[in-house]
Parts: sequence; C-alpha cells; structure tokens
Amino acid sequence: MISMPKIYVILVEPIYPGNIGFIARVMKNFGFKNLIVINPKVNLSSKECRIFASHASDILENAIILNSLNECCSKMDFLVGTTSKIGGDYNILRIPVSPRDLAYLLSEVDGDVGIIFGRETYGLSNEELELCDVIVTIPASAEYPVLNVSHAAAIILYELFLILNRPFFKGFREASRIEKNILINCFNELVNLIDYPVFRKEIAKVIFKHVIGRAFISGREAYTLIGIFKKLIKELKPSNLMEF
Amino acid sequence: MISMPKIYVILVEPIYPGNIGFIARVMKNFGFKNLIVINPKVNLSSKECRIFASHASDILENAIILNSLNECCSKMDFLVGTTSKIGGDYNILRIPVSPRDLAYLLSEVDGDVGIIFGRETYGLSNEELELCDVIVTIPASAEYPVLNVSHAAAIILYELFLILNRPFFKGFREASRIEKNILINCFNELVNLIDYPVFRKEIAKVIFKHVIGRAFISGREAYTLIGIFKKLIKELKPSNLMEF
Repeated sequence: MISMPKIYVILVEPIYPGNIGFIARVMKNFGFKNLIVINPKVNLSSKECRIFASHASDILENAIILNSLNECCSKMDFLVGTTSKIGGDYNILRIPVSPRDLAYLLSEVDGDVGIIFGRETYGLSNEELELCDVIVTIPASAEYPVLNVSHAAAIILYELFLILNRPFFKGFREASRIEKNILINCFNELVNLIDYPVFRKEIAKVIFKHVIGRAFISGREAYTLIGIFKKLIKELKPSNLMEF
Repeated sequence: MISMPKIYVILVEPIYPGNIGFIARVMKNFGFKNLIVINPKVNLSSKECRIFASHASDILENAIILNSLNECCSKMDFLVGTTSKIGGDYNILRIPVSPRDLAYLLSEVDGDVGIIFGRETYGLSNEELELCDVIVTIPASAEYPVLNVSHAAAIILYELFLILNRPFFKGFREASRIEKNILINCFNELVNLIDYPVFRKEIAKVIFKHVIGRAFISGREAYTLIGIFKKLIKELKPSNLMEF
C-alpha cells in the first residue's frame, strides 16, 4: 500500500459567497472533502453559498471555521501557499512551483497537507507565505495572470486528482530521485560504450534525462529499464567480446 | 516556425452572467481572446457580466453573438465538444479524450479550432455533440463529476496554455505518432537482441512505450534517441561480432 497525503483546502478571509460555494463544488468534483475557512466575511450556510456549491453543500456544512491561520498551521505536516505571479517589485519569498510540480511533490508526502488560498483582494500576506513549505503559482498569460480564487483551486485540485489517481498509484509508487539517477547513469554508461560523436552523446544524455523527468516514471518502470540497460552494458563491454 | 491553432471558445445558450464573465476572465488569464456566444439569455454588456469578467471585459465587448451553433460550425476547421462523464444509460457518441490529450492533439492542428461549452442546465445535445470532431471530458470524482462550466473552461484552457507555451514549441515540434513508433520499434529491436527472459523483454517494451507516451517527446528528442538505439543495434548484431 502506498501512502497518500490528506489534503485540506484552507481559505483565508473569503468575502464572496460565490467563491466559497464554487470552491466547495470543485473540491467535491475532485474528491476532496476537508475545508477550513479562516475568519470568513460571510455565513457559509447562506443561501448564496449553497447555490454556488450545488451538490457540495455537505462540504460547507462540515467546514471548520477558525479565527486565524496560525490555529491550523501547527497541525499540518506540509503547507502550500498559492500566489499569482505579479513580478515587478513584488517581494517573492521563494521560487514558486507549478501545480503539476506540486502534485508530483505531494505524491511523495505522507500526512496532513494544507493548501492555502488567499483573499480575493490581496491574496496572502508575506507573513502568511513565510509559514508555507512551498509556494505554487499557476502559469498564465503575463497580460492578466490573476485567476479568480475558485479557478485557481480548480486547476490545483485537478492536477492533484490526476496524480493521486494515476494507474501506478494503485500499487506502484513514483520512482525516487535516486532510482531515476541510477536509470539515467545506466543510459549514460551505455551511450559511452558506443562509437558515436562525443557531442551527440552529450545531447542524447541530456535528452534522456529530460524525457525521464517529464514521464512521471514509477519505481517498477525504472527498475525494468535499468535491467535492460545493465544487460546491454554487459553485452557491449569489450571484456565480453573477448570470450569469442 | 511552427503552426499554431487559432482557438475560439463557443458558449451555447448561457443563462448566468457570472459564468459568462468568469469564462471571459479565464480566457484572458490563459491568453485566449476569441469568444463566440450562441443565443445568450443575458446581455453580455450587463454590469454583472463585467464584474465577473474583471479585467477581461474587452473579451465580452469583442464577443461574436450568433443565433445558432450551425452558423459558426462550418467556419471552423476542427470542433471540440465538452461533456461531463455521467455514464449509465447516457448515449455516449464517442470515447472522450482528456484535456491533456486534447491539448496534445490540438498542438498538431493548424487552423480555426472551436471549443464548445454547453448549457448550464443540460450541456450539449446529442445533435450538437455529433457536429464535433472530438469530445473532451475532464477526469473527476465519480461521486460528483459535473463541473461548473467556467471551471471546466479554466482546466481545458490551462492545459492548452501549457502545451502551446512548452519550451520546445519555441522552435521544436512535438514528435509525430510515426516518429514515436520508430523510436519504440528501435527500442523493441534492441531488447530482442539481448539474452534476457522473454517475459521481461515484453514488460520492458510495454513500459518504454508508456514512458514515451507520457513524456511529450519532441521530434528532435525522438530522432536523437533513435540515433543512439540504431547505433546500439548495429554494434550488438552478431554480424558485427564476426569482424573480430
């Protein structure tokens, strides 16, 4: 059995009932149930919240309401902050990761994970971002990169849903960095054994590394390809040819 | 220079100004500008539409309003229908693709592409879905798979934004199916040349194919790896060993 993170969506001081309702709906769309709302400016059981939540009003009813973000931060094993890339003189605390990278990262995390969405007006403060282990930003057009908070939640939860429901999560785990490095080193060793222009060998090594980086390879997949490459290395090594 | 599809977002008979405004906003967030609205039930220049559109009211102002879907379908080179997976006795016209597969597919399409979003009440009719070249469904929880239309648009346009802005799109193109098949066949030929249990060889072939399928490999990347594998095949073939 593979460990799975327990995801909490944390909304900080939301103003609009439509956004709260929509976030509850999109949580249910992607199978997430735990909503924490910090100091909401509207009543979560209001008619408008429930209209936007549609068939997800149970998530509103079961939401935990707190007075401050600090009350729940200490209970989380891993905290994710969300922010729009607004560049310029904005004091960026950390290099943000993409939602896809975040999903990949969280697939290796065990425990309680809080994903914090900021206010509709000015998002999360620097102090709030400092509480986070990682910051996520959705890649978007430079002309208008600020998404509505419920759309940002939809995209992040969609990426999480995809990775937590990948076929190899039902029994297999994602390859670790070490396993990926063994695979990449085997490929490099193999390439070094062939008679080929050096610059082409180097390009091939970089390309193989990129392909493996993008493919979300599982531990089992990595070991299978390592087995093939090791066998190829053995068969190609000059010492083997001597046996003839 | 690589060809890029021109994307049109087509809304069929939208009822709620909030959804129209939100779709305009998320279009601008991901750099899409062309909105076509079929027989809207609200005025696109109403205050509520503009509030939800936020800084994207220009997209509402420039939207094309038509009376029926047929008026614009003939002008499109490629039509995409969207539908929630509601299973059961629902008459599914085609096997739906995921938003990620759609983005991959559209990255190879040149010309005018219309992505059609249905009514808030019952989506697109069977007749409307029949007009489409491909149907896309967002993977979601079986418990509540029906997303709000603006969230569905956000996720589909996000996937399109990512693929149309991938680094290798600035000069490289995605590998074609034929190129991927050549790469996979080279790997298979290579695996056949080694002394290894047959069942392990077959597993390795399947795994390599899956890894390549997930990695969004570019044409250049495919050719580089093909070069390495062909050289390996040449060096491993028994005829070569005879030269010693």
